[in-house]
Amino acid sequence: MSDGPTVQHLATMADVWDAYRDDLVEVEHQIHQSIHSDAPLINVVAGQIFSSGGKRIRPLLVILCTRLCGAIPKDAIALGSLIEFIHTATLLHDDVLDEADLRRGQKTARCVWGNQASILVGDYLYSQAMAQIAAYRNHNINEVLAHACRRMTEGEVLQLCVNDQSRTTEVEYLQIVEFKTATLVAAACRVGAIIAGASLSEQEALYRFGLNLGMAFQLADDRLDYMADRSRLGKPLGQDLRQGMMTLPLLHLLQYCTDRERRWVSQLIRSRSIQNQDLADIIALMHHYGSLSYAFARAREYVEAAHLDLEPFPDGLAKRALAIVANYMIHRDQ
Amino acid sequence: MSDGPTVQHLATMADVWDAYRDDLVEVEHQIHQSIHSDAPLINVVAGQIFSSGGKRIRPLLVILCTRLCGAIPKDAIALGSLIEFIHTATLLHDDVLDEADLRRGQKTARCVWGNQASILVGDYLYSQAMAQIAAYRNHNINEVLAHACRRMTEGEVLQLCVNDQSRTTEVEYLQIVEFKTATLVAAACRVGAIIAGASLSEQEALYRFGLNLGMAFQLADDRLDYMADRSRLGKPLGQDLRQGMMTLPLLHLLQYCTDRERRWVSQLIRSRSIQNQDLADIIALMHHYGSLSYAFARAREYVEAAHLDLEPFPDGLAKRALAIVANYMIHRDQ
Repeated sequence: MSDGPTVQHLATMADVWDAYRDDLVEVEHQIHQSIHSDAPLINVVAGQIFSSGGKRIRPLLVILCTRLCGAIPKDAIALGSLIEFIHTATLLHDDVLDEADLRRGQKTARCVWGNQASILVGDYLYSQAMAQIAAYRNHNINEVLAHACRRMTEGEVLQLCVNDQSRTTEVEYLQIVEFKTATLVAAACRVGAIIAGASLSEQEALYRFGLNLGMAFQLADDRLDYMADRSRLGKPLGQDLRQGMMTLPLLHLLQYCTDRERRWVSQLIRSRSIQNQDLADIIALMHHYGSLSYAFARAREYVEAAHLDLEPFPDGLAKRALAIVANYMIHRDQ
Repeated sequence: MSDGPTVQHLATMADVWDAYRDDLVEVEHQIHQSIHSDAPLINVVAGQIFSSGGKRIRPLLVILCTRLCGAIPKDAIALGSLIEFIHTATLLHDDVLDEADLRRGQKTARCVWGNQASILVGDYLYSQAMAQIAAYRNHNINEVLAHACRRMTEGEVLQLCVNDQSRTTEVEYLQIVEFKTATLVAAACRVGAIIAGASLSEQEALYRFGLNLGMAFQLADDRLDYMADRSRLGKPLGQDLRQGMMTLPLLHLLQYCTDRERRWVSQLIRSRSIQNQDLADIIALMHHYGSLSYAFARAREYVEAAHLDLEPFPDGLAKRALAIVANYMIHRDQ
């Protein structure tokens, strides 16, 4: 990166994409190389899902954390790609679980090739990642990623249980977000540190950094489900609500609205038949009670905590880029 | 085992279960300890599927192979239980993929708790197994099991592709069986050898032994789908056929029957609407062309190969037990 941009030139996420373009091109190359299977269906389904966008935030974090800890990102590119495999596997299963038809503005794999293909290619990507990770013969990396995968599935199951209940506490909700989303982001950051041979305290600091990023990302995402510009992210407005998913804005609303409003909202969620006018009314209530601002404020707290996690590390391009990625978690709609 | 039975007393599978009862009780104990999760749904679904039978062939093989190579089976019990987790995860996903309502004579998890729970608890068991296996910090074990898991999902995907086609070759079919079923059995045997610190050639011999067992098991199972006493195994007769699954008896029939019969059978499979009389007619054709005898003969060949794989090992209780398990693969209905 010696001939690349300086810290002063790195201001926005676009600058980060630009500064690390070579590494990210390598990530794409690795992903498409690792997909290859004897089963044509895998190549087609996985090829389609990897070509349909996705910002490769997790590979980028592995690369940046490796660079932050002073190493070149050769293994970071390969391991980042495998973490993207794990992430993609969860998306394929999520789409089946949520009966989702759209992701990133395109038809989901389950919509095009059916639930069977979506489940199986998810299983394949996951097992392919685990096999290639095992081949690195690094116990710390094995353990961090195996732990993250376990946590992710626990989070999914907890969420399934919670959605069947009428009341969820904020603590339960935050635990689900941590398990489902944040642990894999945290693991990506820690893997970057492990590759670079960083100290245990550096590994732990970057794990916490990733955890905070993951929490911020999900809380911001939950809020976007109720924002009018949601369509920009390729999902329909109010999708979480229609699926009965208890997210932070909804939990906040249910806590602060009147008993009468609570009964109406709860009954609407249970009905699983929410009209556009109902959605507009709920969003109006959320604005009235400050539920969307509350979710955003909580997301911002996690970003601030993430900035603190970076403090012990030496200033430079990688640290600056990581700080920009942290801010980007809550400003993806801008 | 010093006060236990002698080689002369070991004649049937019942004797084997009896001789290794203590080890198998420990396996059950480990399985139920490892299930435990904070999510009640996991405990209920996994608890039910592990309580609903299952012969624990894979844990038994780990234990016997460890003993065959001269070690006590402490780690074999734990790792055998985790391999049973992986196997059970595939059953939970298979039931969703096959839309199966019955397994081992009982309602499937997806029937009782829904597809979501079945997919997620499968994901959980798999990731829980991988996390606990990683904690052993043994690269050979990691690699053997990660490779087996990858192969299993590749086999599932290959099968999905093949079922969409009107013609499958026997070679393709045998590859699917090897990937889907035999590699995990082979991995179980090899893990037993690794735990005992066996030589590479011993590890490879027991891997081949397990591969042969797995092939024999599946071919015998495919044949049972067309046998009148199939109900004893808790699945309805002709289930594979109704799902359009191309198994060895059907492939043999399609190869040797007349063109007219072939058109009739192919059209029936595509229709996915097979009446009992159709099934009876197909079974009669299979008897006429020797398709069921052929599948059994192929299964028996694998058992014979498995016996050869055992030859280099010292005689004794474990070797005798493994030989009985090999025979049991094709005589489970007796």
